Amino acid sequence: MSLERISSTKVFDGRQEQYRHYSQALDCEMRFAIFLPPLSERMEKTQRFPVLYWLSGLTCTDENFSQKAGAQRMAAELGIVLVIPDTSPRGDDVPDDDGYDLGQGAGFYLNATQDPWKRHYHMYDYVLEELPALVEDNFPVTDRRAIAGHSMGGHGALVLALRNPGRFTSVSAFSPVANPISCPWGEKAFSAYLGTDRSSWEEYDATVLLSRATETQPILVSQGEDDEFLETQLKPGALEAAAEAAGYPVKVEHHAGYDHSYYFIASFIEQHLRFHADYLLKPEG
Amino acid sequence: MSLERISSTKVFDGRQEQYRHYSQALDCEMRFAIFLPPLSERMEKTQRFPVLYWLSGLTCTDENFSQKAGAQRMAAELGIVLVIPDTSPRGDDVPDDDGYDLGQGAGFYLNATQDPWKRHYHMYDYVLEELPALVEDNFPVTDRRAIAGHSMGGHGALVLALRNPGRFTSVSAFSPVANPISCPWGEKAFSAYLGTDRSSWEEYDATVLLSRATETQPILVSQGEDDEFLETQLKPGALEAAAEAAGYPVKVEHHAGYDHSYYFIASFIEQHLRFHADYLLKPEG
Repeated sequence: MSLERISSTKVFDGRQEQYRHYSQALDCEMRFAIFLPPLSERMEKTQRFPVLYWLSGLTCTDENFSQKAGAQRMAAELGIVLVIPDTSPRGDDVPDDDGYDLGQGAGFYLNATQDPWKRHYHMYDYVLEELPALVEDNFPVTDRRAIAGHSMGGHGALVLALRNPGRFTSVSAFSPVANPISCPWGEKAFSAYLGTDRSSWEEYDATVLLSRATETQPILVSQGEDDEFLETQLKPGALEAAAEAAGYPVKVEHHAGYDHSYYFIASFIEQHLRFHADYLLKPEG
Repeated sequence: MSLERISSTKVFDGRQEQYRHYSQALDCEMRFAIFLPPLSERMEKTQRFPVLYWLSGLTCTDENFSQKAGAQRMAAELGIVLVIPDTSPRGDDVPDDDGYDLGQGAGFYLNATQDPWKRHYHMYDYVLEELPALVEDNFPVTDRRAIAGHSMGGHGALVLALRNPGRFTSVSAFSPVANPISCPWGEKAFSAYLGTDRSSWEEYDATVLLSRATETQPILVSQGEDDEFLETQLKPGALEAAAEAAGYPVKVEHHAGYDHSYYFIASFIEQHLRFHADYLLKPEG
């Protein structure tokens, strides 16, 4: 699989880069961003870092988190690689929709089964398998992975982790779409991508998956109380209720006064990175 | 003068806000951003903060620095208000140019004397007098001011400080246009805004002003060595040579591998804020 580097910029002594590659899972050309922490001089040839995958929300590309979250400062300090995929397949040949919440920029981290989406819209497979394989083949990383995201990407992070215990050391989400089968964003997207059989939707709903989980993993959720989508789209209360009913220890933090924007993410990304570092950097065994 | 708040977002326990107002100096409606650090509960009614004015570069609005520099974290910690003006007068009635380096988004922090620019393009007066008066009338700030900027805004910060000793406690610049009378950006803008008499340009050239300075003030300049505009447009060497010839202590730091982007600013904004804090927060007298 060939990777083409399209930008490389020094930041916090590390490098923020963008790459283009052909994705088999998505059947189109894709771009992703990666932050590589500074290598210590002593270990330049052998040093490898664990990876945090960041999944962005509706309308985003790889650039929003890269430019606005301020995550590189702490990732450089802790020694964590950040990998930031795009939010959907892209291109003139890829089906799209006029709405911001369906089609390009709105892949919902699932594998579509319905026309016209089913050829390209396989973000679940892309983020779970293809992108990590590519990253692990081409960059100085270990096979320790954590996953995090915002809004639609918080949904993606929770779903990917809950369906694949052991694949990620830890998962965190800012303002996730926590119960998509019962909110307008989820109902619109899942109807289009997965069809009318609602039982097929449950495999992509963090609240349902958590209530069925047979083993636990570390989960941190941060939610702003002034988030304009809190009640209509995000529904963290459903996730909390399912966790309580299942006896699943999920840490959900509610922050007074914060909204849905990247200013909220910037304010708490250090906490999320330190949370993941506790698991990513723990000695093996 | 009336101020209309158009956004307010919590970040790092403080607030990032945008305001609209009619500017007399620019004869048009303007927008600026302000970051207000969190008030300590004990002092809520009486606490006042010093202000750092941030001047942005070509093509920017108040949003680039606000969203990409990550400055709020340290400003909140140090207790410094950030004020971020736009980079030119704006509006359908304001003259513009097809180039990115002249007209709207490219005010160069000067007072234009030539048609069609002279009616609106008075960013020098706006940043020096009108905006601070507005801020000091409407927000919990002291009359201690520092100034900083990037590229065209680094030029603006240096020029405003050098021409007005005592007005700012300290000045800093990232990648400033340090000698605009002898670079393409400066020659194009100054010809248009100030006319063909080059002696009138010298009042807006940091290198010339520094060589004529009769008193010193604290100056910090940060420059990336991989900056794509280093040799053609920025010319920090001219400023350094003038400082050395004049015996003016200017701290110019060259950083290997960094370019002209906000990733460079994000990497060193903490250092610049701490530099200003040393002067802004010093006990009076």
